[in-house]
Parts: sequence; structure tokens; C-alpha cells
Amino acid sequence: MADKIFRVNMTDLTTAIEDVPADWAGHGGRGLTSTIVAAEVIPTCHPLGPNNKLVFAPGLLSGTVAANSGRLSIGAKSPLTGTIKESNAGGTAAQLLARAGCKAMIIEGLPKEDKWYSLALTPDGVTISEETELIGKGNFEVVETLSKRIEGKFGVVTIGQAGEMKLTSANVSIKDPDGGIRSNGRGGLGAVMGSKKIKFITIDPKGGKVDIADPDKFKAANRIFAKALIDHPVSQALGQYGTNVLVNIINESGGLPTRNFTQGQFEGHESISGETMHDTIEQRGGKVKHNCHPGCVIQCSQVYNDADGKKLTSGFEYESIWAMGADCCVEDLDRIAEADRIMDDIGIDTIETSVAMGVAMEAGVLPFGDGAGICRILKEEIAKGTGLGRIIGSGAGAVGRAYGVTRVPVVKNQAIPAYDPRAIKGIGITYATSTQGADHTMGYTIATNILNVGGKVDPLTKEGQVELSRNLQIATAAIDSTGMCLFIAFAALDDEKCLPALIDLINARFNLSLTGDDIVNLGKYILKTERAFNIAAGFNSADDRLPEFFYNEELPPHNVVFDFTGEEIDTFWDF
Amino acid sequence: MADKIFRVNMTDLTTAIEDVPADWAGHGGRGLTSTIVAAEVIPTCHPLGPNNKLVFAPGLLSGTVAANSGRLSIGAKSPLTGTIKESNAGGTAAQLLARAGCKAMIIEGLPKEDKWYSLALTPDGVTISEETELIGKGNFEVVETLSKRIEGKFGVVTIGQAGEMKLTSANVSIKDPDGGIRSNGRGGLGAVMGSKKIKFITIDPKGGKVDIADPDKFKAANRIFAKALIDHPVSQALGQYGTNVLVNIINESGGLPTRNFTQGQFEGHESISGETMHDTIEQRGGKVKHNCHPGCVIQCSQVYNDADGKKLTSGFEYESIWAMGADCCVEDLDRIAEADRIMDDIGIDTIETSVAMGVAMEAGVLPFGDGAGICRILKEEIAKGTGLGRIIGSGAGAVGRAYGVTRVPVVKNQAIPAYDPRAIKGIGITYATSTQGADHTMGYTIATNILNVGGKVDPLTKEGQVELSRNLQIATAAIDSTGMCLFIAFAALDDEKCLPALIDLINARFNLSLTGDDIVNLGKYILKTERAFNIAAGFNSADDRLPEFFYNEELPPHNVVFDFTGEEIDTFWDF
Repeated sequence: MADKIFRVNMTDLTTAIEDVPADWAGHGGRGLTSTIVAAEVIPTCHPLGPNNKLVFAPGLLSGTVAANSGRLSIGAKSPLTGTIKESNAGGTAAQLLARAGCKAMIIEGLPKEDKWYSLALTPDGVTISEETELIGKGNFEVVETLSKRIEGKFGVVTIGQAGEMKLTSANVSIKDPDGGIRSNGRGGLGAVMGSKKIKFITIDPKGGKVDIADPDKFKAANRIFAKALIDHPVSQALGQYGTNVLVNIINESGGLPTRNFTQGQFEGHESISGETMHDTIEQRGGKVKHNCHPGCVIQCSQVYNDADGKKLTSGFEYESIWAMGADCCVEDLDRIAEADRIMDDIGIDTIETSVAMGVAMEAGVLPFGDGAGICRILKEEIAKGTGLGRIIGSGAGAVGRAYGVTRVPVVKNQAIPAYDPRAIKGIGITYATSTQGADHTMGYTIATNILNVGGKVDPLTKEGQVELSRNLQIATAAIDSTGMCLFIAFAALDDEKCLPALIDLINARFNLSLTGDDIVNLGKYILKTERAFNIAAGFNSADDRLPEFFYNEELPPHNVVFDFTGEEIDTFWDF
Repeated sequence: MADKIFRVNMTDLTTAIEDVPADWAGHGGRGLTSTIVAAEVIPTCHPLGPNNKLVFAPGLLSGTVAANSGRLSIGAKSPLTGTIKESNAGGTAAQLLARAGCKAMIIEGLPKEDKWYSLALTPDGVTISEETELIGKGNFEVVETLSKRIEGKFGVVTIGQAGEMKLTSANVSIKDPDGGIRSNGRGGLGAVMGSKKIKFITIDPKGGKVDIADPDKFKAANRIFAKALIDHPVSQALGQYGTNVLVNIINESGGLPTRNFTQGQFEGHESISGETMHDTIEQRGGKVKHNCHPGCVIQCSQVYNDADGKKLTSGFEYESIWAMGADCCVEDLDRIAEADRIMDDIGIDTIETSVAMGVAMEAGVLPFGDGAGICRILKEEIAKGTGLGRIIGSGAGAVGRAYGVTRVPVVKNQAIPAYDPRAIKGIGITYATSTQGADHTMGYTIATNILNVGGKVDPLTKEGQVELSRNLQIATAAIDSTGMCLFIAFAALDDEKCLPALIDLINARFNLSLTGDDIVNLGKYILKTERAFNIAAGFNSADDRLPEFFYNEELPPHNVVFDFTGEEIDTFWDF
């Protein structure tokens, strides 16, 4: 079936199916959401007002059997950063949207009445219904209730209480194959969905399928591509220990931000490490490997059970474990898993919220190490929208402002994740220059700074970091357009067969003849489009800087500061 | 005695007296604080970190007998706006500082230990002492306790609980002649003082006096100057009704922001008007006229008693009454006076906090009209630093962000005061272009738009507004350097003898021969110095805009929007 644009106007409560404009035809995922946001959203608009739009786009390969192609991109102007934003996650929605013939769904306007709604998307279009039963409920109850309410196999996109309250750390949450939750977490897109009064969206392709122009070529390419992914040692480590394999590695590097970014190593790292997690999962009968979407061959997710063998959480990521573990000094993996589950349920970004907790600990709101306090604040304050809950639920920057804390690890008001930019300098360039605020996934220099993937760039010197971040940010923008998980990048950087196979997959799907240069140009186009939006929104190079304390406070054990000048950072954009 | 710079280093707990650098010699008040902040503060520093400095400067004429010359300028990088900031207020401190031979006091650094301090300034220098007794206390208790603790006549500069908590709406508070409080309210300078762990500063000139180069010329000029002030009809109205004379006038104009800036007129305006206030004060044996500093000939302050004839508040300003009255729809002047007193006591900006309450009312935190709720939140939430208290105490922008409200009247994160920029367009240009965030006192176009002072510019059309705001902002920057109250401007605009007399006063004080052109050039220099600081801090013309809703939502009764393009606003800086 031909791909279409599905448009939903929440002001008039009308929907439409439109042909894909020629300019948008070659795009998918992040490339498409950013193109649409740049074309249709007034850059200076209030992110929660009627002029912002929420755009959903599966990747170019989503809905096919291509390995690891199930990421859903969501774009808008971010209420957290004020920049353009694309956040992508797994789950089943991207594949189902693509099979429903939806190239992108654009949600615009705000309802005139103070009512809540749900959307139901099928190949025939979108139906808007009023919703009352599930308002105020968490994501797990939404998914469970809908599985009883609606027949058949369908995807669910939902917001928890955080999104309803328009908290700027709110996720858009996606049902995974087992009724778990994957999170489009960064940048508060759940608040945009909440501002439009949409509690959830169901997606039913009604048996629809994605057309493949050259099925044989596609199959052959997929075989090579999947093998490259499976064979890479980082893929294997991810399958064995999840992303949490990184706790010990980053701790060893001295770049594990600890106690609100005052140390680079965490004494309790063993207790929260991937190795400990792996053994605990095995002992309790969980699953070491688990896929967030059908077709994933890496399977970095897992099912983490509690001491009684009952599922506690899945998609239990390094960045979440780091944030509550090292950054908040909580040494109890079960407690961190409990908090992770609560955050999935209320639909709030684990990175932003946990870094915010670290800042709150520095402010004396709760003591460092108080995992029970974190869970209490999540359930009793954030989920209920108390004053304290709204401060912490508005992110690390908000906590810093409310409590007068000066050590606040944010760029463009978005919390810096699990890699200290003083000890791993390449990632500092990514944090500073990313079009979307601090985000490791925008240009994951850890690959080359620490994991020796795609070569080796010494993390402690300035040399080569700007170029490394630039190349990775360009490549990432392109990968984020395909629907591919970013973890294909390890194989793509090291295995010379991987990237050509990926390009072959796209060419076979659409009957194109793209080359590697086209992919690089796509990445550059996306970054420049996003940056132009930000500049029109009022950003300038002064926003491409790290907070003052990274320049002034030495990080043990290497006792290093972030020492790039503004001029050096700005050379990032010389392309 | 020769004027000196008093420097206090809170990191080392050392103090020094320095000669005045040649570049600073011609400056006073705002011109001096902005010159020093621009010279010594790193524009990108965290406002609450060790690199910000808090600068106190009496005006060029402060400490003399010149009428209305008792304003104290305080400058720093603002934690509320991120811009350079100068806030000035009356009280006795400016005159006493000048008589102590202090041209400016610069407080820098942050204490290493978690202790509180006080400063005692005399002509011999500044003494730093540890303070424990008054920590956690309100401003009134500080003033009262010090009057028992310390002998003689001295000035007090203090912070309440808001400043201790580093809330970004915190005042620096100044004792007035009667033990009341005047507030350097805008921009959160109290938080900067709190970050430096200084609870209060006492000022004792030990009998010191300000030298006058030509006493006879000075006396003659002061006679003309004072007469011009006394004779102007606006001065007389201010003496009769206080600044609150404006409630009925601005309501009549349709520019009285009501119910969180959704209407331009307030049904309950009579109950909160200057006329009602005047009659109430007379009935209860208060004082209709009261001076905030010795030598004021306008006396717009008053003593407002409660129903039992006991003093409730003084310095009860139009902007405070408007904000709690019209903007929050509270029709009870006694309740507003109670809230005004509490805000003076905890040391928090009445404009910022009350506009924040209006946004909180729109968010449903408390109902519109709930004056008792305002007082409860002030006492039980803000003074105690609860989560809700910290949100509201962080200003209107913070409330908007925490509750996802889109109608948030701020520019550069500072609350827009009592004049709607849709119905009074000149003041919109001032809000947008001011170097310090939305602030009516930076270029008070109400004079010409509404009061027909200095001519007449129709408030509802765009014509002439940019020029009007520009001329007034230049003149204001110069007036703010003299130590003069801004209310001399009415006479200066209409009475041709007033401004020459003011220039004669300065010339006679310092043996200079300044002309009107010099004063204009001083004003231009100050604005450009401040703007250069802001640009270096990361601001650009995108920050010189009003919030989106002023462009999109029509304000009754005139049903007008703010319709200046960005390009039109930016012509402000063509000088």
C-alpha cells in the first residue's frame, strides 16, 4: 500500500489522509519528523501551545523484516529544551504504523474543551474518541486495560500521569511485544501529547504489509546485515549483560559521573554492574536476553525479576542504572529496578528524573543513597503532582533553579547522561553541539573513546574529538532515519559489509540507488535542518556550551576539566 | 572625605578599601553598578556561583540634601533573568553609604564553610562576622533585633527567608526611616546575597558627610529642583493617593491586566483603588503621606493600618496592589496589604510573586480571588521552602514551566508588571527591549501614553512607541545614576527648569560642567554597556520579544494584540 500522511487536528477534532509531498518522500524516522517540524512548526511557538505539532514517523525500513528496524521517531518542539526534538524508541508501534501505510502522523492544535481523547489509527485513517476511564492511570494499566477492551493485535502509544500533567520530563511510551513499556524519553514529548489531551493511540494495520520493490535483493542484504550485527563483539556483550555492561567499563575509565558529577568513579559500582545484574537475572529465573521489538538480533533488553521471581522491569538500561546508582549513590539494584518500573509506569524519563534526583540530593531534599526516598518521591510526589513532584518532574535544570544549586549537569536544560565530559571529552562535544540538548545517543563517541570501535581517540585529550563527534552525529542522524536501532553502529563502524548491506536494504525497499555519500549527505541535511530551526527559535552558539562547573571543577580520579574553548566547539559546524 | 571602593571577599573572608579607578569616577548608582558588573563579572557565570559579584552603589547625589536623592542601586548578574541587573530602592542605606565615603561596595566569592555572616560597614571599612541568631528570620525581626543589639543610628540591608533560600524572586531589603522595609525587588538580587551567605549589612557613617564642591550653587539648584517636583500635578497626585492612584486610570485605559492577563479591565477596581485606599487610611488613622527616605518631597508612600488602627504596611504600591488585586482578582485591600507585609517580611518581590500567583491560579493551584490562599502560600509554603513555595518563589516563569501553563507573562523570565502591552503599546517596547527583563521602570511610557506627561503618544497605535521607549530608557538610565527617585521624571519632562537644576546639582557637588548632552550620552553608555554584557552572556534579539500569547490573544475591551514585528522592535537599538 502507498505510504500516506495521517493528519489529526485536535482543535477541530478532524482527521485526514494526505499524499506525501515530494520533499518528504525520501525521508523516514528522524529525517522526516525534523523535516516536518521545521516546515510546519513556528520555531518561537510555546511547545505546549496550539502551534506545536507532534509528529510520529516509522523509519525507512520499519515494518519490513530487516533486522533491528523497529524504532519509532517522535518529533516536536521540546518543552524541556525549547529546541527541535526527535526521540526514538523500540516497541511495536513503528512496525505497525508502517504496515498501516502511515509514513507519518502529524497531530496539531489543542482541544477547545477540557476533555481527554484517544486516537485509533488503521489504514483507513484515524478516529478520535473521548476517553475517561484511563485518565489518571499509569502506562501499565493503560496497556492491560486496552488488551481487554480491544480485539486483535495492535500497538499502543500512551502517556502516564507525567504526560497528563505536562511535566517537561514526560515520556511518550510504547508497548513492547510482551506488554512492557519502551520510552521515547528525552525532551518531554509526553508533555506535548498531554497538552493535546491525547491519553493513548492504538495502531492496527489490519493485516497491512510494507511493499518491497526487490524482495530477493532485500532478503540477501538482510542476511549480510544481520550477520554483521550478530558477529560484532559489542553486540554479543550487549546480549549478555545488556547496556549495563558499561558500568564497570565506564567506572574503569574514570568517567562514571558519581554523587551528582563530583567524582568519576563509584565505590559501589560492582553492586550495580551488568555482571551482577546478569547473575541476579539468572538466579531469579528472569531473561538475560529480550527484544524490544520483533526482529531484533542483538536483544540487549532483559527481564529482571524481583527476589520472588516476579517480573520487576525490562529495558533496564545502563543510563538509568548509572543515574540512580552512581549519580545518586544507590547501591541496591532491586531498588533501582523498582524505581525504573515506576518511571515506566508514570511515563517519565529515567535519565532526566534520576539526574534531577541527584541535584535534589545535593540540595538536601533527600540524602545521597536514599533509594527508598527516590521511589517515595516518584509515587507520592511526581505521580500525584505535588509541588516537589513537579519540580523534580520538570528535570535537573528545574531542581537547580528551585533550590539554587550551581552544579547542575544540563545542556540546553536537558540532563547530561552517564558519561562525564571531563574524562571522556568527545562526548562533551556531542553534549554541547547536539541540536537537542545533552544526549549521548546523538553522537556516541564512547564507541571510539572507550570501546575502541571505529578506531581509537584518547578520551582525555582534545585532539580529534570535534571531528569524531561530527562524524558520529552525521551518521547517527542518518541511522535514526532508517528505523534502525543505534546499536547497529558498532558493526557499521567495524565491519565493512554492514553499511553497504544497510544501503542495499533501503535501495531494495524503494527501488533506489543510494550510495554511501547519499547517506552522509542525508545526515548533514538533518543536522542543518534541525540547527536552522533552533536558530530561528532564538538559540545561538552561546547555547552550545557545557555548564560552568565542568570548566572549573576537576573530576577525580584523573583530575581533569572540560577545556574546549567556545571557538573550538563551534568548529563542529564547519561542514 | 574621598569616595572609595569597599571590597569584600567572601571566599577568603577578607575586606579592603580601594581607590576609585579613573573609569569609574564619573559614575554612581546604576551607571556604576553596571560598569563594575560589566568589568568584573564573567557574563556566562552562574549567578549564584563564586564568579558573580553583588555591587551596591549610592547615586551621584545620594547623601546630600538634594531632594529625592536617596535611592540605592544594587547590581549583579540576575539569577532570575540571566541578564545584568540593577535594582534600586529607597530607604536610608544609600545616604548612609555615601556619608561613609563608600562610592561602591563590591561583594565577591562564596564562603568555603556552610556558615552565615553579617557585614558592618563604617568609613574605616567592612567587618565580617559570623551570624547565627537571625538566620531563618524575617526582615522585620532582623531590623528590630539589630536596633536593640547595636547602638546609634545606622542603616540596614537585609534578606529574609527568600534570600536565604536563594529563591530567584528574593529581594534585598532596606530599612526605611521608621523601621519599615523598602525592597530592591526585581531580578532576585536577594538570592545573590543569600548565595554569598550574608544575612544583613549594617551601615554606620560615624558622622561622616558628603563633600559639596560649591555649596551655594548646590543650595540654589536644589531649591529650584524641589519646587519643580512639588509643583507637578503628578507629584501631587502621588502624594495624595500613592502610586495606587493608577488603578482607576489604567483600568479606564483598558490596559489593567486582569485574571492573569486575559482582560484589560477589572470589575472590582473601585475596591482596590487609590481613592479607596486614601479614604481607608484616613478613617483608620494611618498616614496618607510618608517618605521612604529623608529628603523626599513627593512622599508617595503611606502608612496603611488595619481595621484596629494598627500599622499593616507601608510602601503599598500600585504594582503590588494591581498584581494581587486585578491580576489575581482579589477585591479585598486589607488582604492585599496583609500579603504585602508578609512579602516585605520574607523578602520577596511583590510583582514577581503576585504574577506567579496569577499563573498558579490559572493552573488551578488556588482559585482566582483567593486572597487568603495567597497569604497561606506565602507563610506556609514560600517562607518554609516547600516544593510549591519554591515554585512560586521562583517566579511566574517557573510556575508556567512546572504546571505547563502557556499564558505566562514574562520577558527574559521576569514577570510583566501592571500595564498590558497590547493596550499600552509603548510599555511593550520597554518590556521587550529592556536590558533587564520586563520592567516598567526601565522606560515608563505610561507617562506619555496615558498621563500626557512629556506630550502624548496614543497607546493603541504603533506610531512613535519605539522612539518614546528609547528616549525614556536613555533618560532613566541616567536618572538611575544620580540616586534620584524615578518620579522626578514627570517634572523633568514637563518643567523646563527641572532638568537644568538637576544637572546643576551634580556640577555643584563635583565641580563639573556637565550639559544635557552629557546626561543623554551617559544614559546611552549605560544601556549599551548592559546590552554588551547580555550579548556576551548569550542573549540575542530573539530574547527581545513578548510571549506568544500577546500576539495571538485579543485583550478586551479594546480587543487588541501586540503587533510589533521583530524588526520593528529591533530598531530600538538604532542609536
